[in-house]
Amino acid sequence: MITLYDCATAPNPRRARIFLAEKGVVHETVQIDLRSGEQMSEAFRAINPHCTVPTLRVDATLVLTDNAAIAAYLEAQYPQPPLLGNSPNDKAEIASLNWRMEFDGLMPVAEALRNGSPAMADRALPGPVNYAQIPELAQRGLARAQRFFETLDAHLADRSFVAAEQFSVADITAVVAVDFARVIKLKPDERYPHLLRWRAAMGERPSCKL
Amino acid sequence: MITLYDCATAPNPRRARIFLAEKGVVHETVQIDLRSGEQMSEAFRAINPHCTVPTLRVDATLVLTDNAAIAAYLEAQYPQPPLLGNSPNDKAEIASLNWRMEFDGLMPVAEALRNGSPAMADRALPGPVNYAQIPELAQRGLARAQRFFETLDAHLADRSFVAAEQFSVADITAVVAVDFARVIKLKPDERYPHLLRWRAAMGERPSCKL
Repeated sequence: MITLYDCATAPNPRRARIFLAEKGVVHETVQIDLRSGEQMSEAFRAINPHCTVPTLRVDATLVLTDNAAIAAYLEAQYPQPPLLGNSPNDKAEIASLNWRMEFDGLMPVAEALRNGSPAMADRALPGPVNYAQIPELAQRGLARAQRFFETLDAHLADRSFVAAEQFSVADITAVVAVDFARVIKLKPDERYPHLLRWRAAMGERPSCKL
Repeated sequence: MITLYDCATAPNPRRARIFLAEKGVVHETVQIDLRSGEQMSEAFRAINPHCTVPTLRVDATLVLTDNAAIAAYLEAQYPQPPLLGNSPNDKAEIASLNWRMEFDGLMPVAEALRNGSPAMADRALPGPVNYAQIPELAQRGLARAQRFFETLDAHLADRSFVAAEQFSVADITAVVAVDFARVIKLKPDERYPHLLRWRAAMGERPSCKL
């Protein structure tokens, strides 16, 4: 049985949860308790030495240790429905927007949270190495996250999906980034009407309720 | 004619240059002078509003504005030789390692350079918005870049390529990251014998001389 090592409260494993749901891939889920540091345990390190979730154990010989691997594998192994695009042009647009949702959305929110929260002292970056918080990076992350909302709202003004006029991994990453921004007290409101409309439409998908 | 908007001295356009060369895609090149800020000009903004290189103009209707788009498009349009992998397992491993080479290699070097160099004041991030330098981020970038060399050396101890026992985009990103680290005075030396061996082998490829 395929096993997803997950954490219900964390943004990155949610990307894998939604991807798996959209593909209809049957799997079991194991929760890893990030708050107690279970990802750093010897038991979990033996599964994923990067000490991060999501981790997808496909079988005894194949363990996927990040969302990049999980998306590439699932798209190739379960082509329907396509989430990375079909034509060269669609693949390019989806890859580009997914990358931007990660760099311009998820990362700034994570920077603001991890460099500002007392609960995350020395955990400014995920993974096995501790890094001290940088307060200026928390501030920059917040500023960039606000700009991300503005940019995404403008981008969605004449679009129903983030990329290539179809639901894709770029929508998944964007939904997760927008929802994750709650942790730094950012929520889409009436200043962002296109973002609100798109998020409401995404909310109709069962996968996005996960 | 396909046109690559390039900058001979910058790491990210080099990734596209190598990718195009490995695929044998005939194209013309236009140099954008990042030192004088040509990427911010109205003329270039009209081509790529993100104000970054590489930018690949395929035709009047298709302009690819980042490496994610360029790699996805070229792989789909020019499948041979594959640079993103063929089997689901290889695609996963290559996507994962490419992502790690970008996040753990290119990004820390860029953080160290952009947050430390007097010539890059207020240019702590690429793109149309100015962000102030954060000296602590320059220090963290240097520490992470050193760790990247160590990690990559250990990874290559029993490998000839970064991922999936074949030349791939993960090698391209790694070569560019390792070479780029010169700007923060990091070079592979005898402390990193596996990294040195791999880099020497990559240097035999005409594409990696670009």
